[in-house]
Amino acid sequence: MNPRFKLWIEKEGEVVFAEGRRLLLEAVRERGSLNSAAKGLGMSYRAAWGKIKATEKRLGVRLLEASIGGRGGGGARLTSEAERLLKDYEIYQKRVKNCVEREYKKIFGRFA
Amino acid sequence: MNPRFKLWIEKEGEVVFAEGRRLLLEAVRERGSLNSAAKGLGMSYRAAWGKIKATEKRLGVRLLEASIGGRGGGGARLTSEAERLLKDYEIYQKRVKNCVEREYKKIFGRFA
Repeated sequence: MNPRFKLWIEKEGEVVFAEGRRLLLEAVRERGSLNSAAKGLGMSYRAAWGKIKATEKRLGVRLLEASIGGRGGGGARLTSEAERLLKDYEIYQKRVKNCVEREYKKIFGRFA
Repeated sequence: MNPRFKLWIEKEGEVVFAEGRRLLLEAVRERGSLNSAAKGLGMSYRAAWGKIKATEKRLGVRLLEASIGGRGGGGARLTSEAERLLKDYEIYQKRVKNCVEREYKKIFGRFA
């Protein structure tokens, strides 16, 4: 038996950041383009763009910037704020996971 | 902006205990019958029974016992293990919530 959790950040009932957006940003980092990232995740470009814009608006930071040149002539890369957000989200997930597992053992250890 | 989470206990990929079963047990406690509890939650008796039995089997404890008498002649009430499980689950949720909120403030406080 083991505990599981989902964790996300909301504003006024709408998702600001969660697992899906983490995957999207990481795909942009890897593929160098939002269009290619969206395709890789089976999303429409429009949906991916909408998610990025919504998160940017709610956080008040830019997540993507144009990268000029390269094959296909230009794409997108993560801003330093996006990199920081990914790092912070990873730390957050890890700390909550530690807490979820520690408290589980304390409280439900008798079922182990 | 604020963090949100869902927390549950699994065994081999199946839910052992989560929010839905908490509601079901509390409804049995309140209504004195599994049939009435299921109806109150918009579930079939069969589904409610299946959930209770699955949790009992995975935890190795009984959750419901027959209560004899009263109007309608008999129903169900929670065992002491079920009461303990509800209490422990409540404590678990609260502690994880505290952790989720504390770490959120530390890590994402700049967006407050």
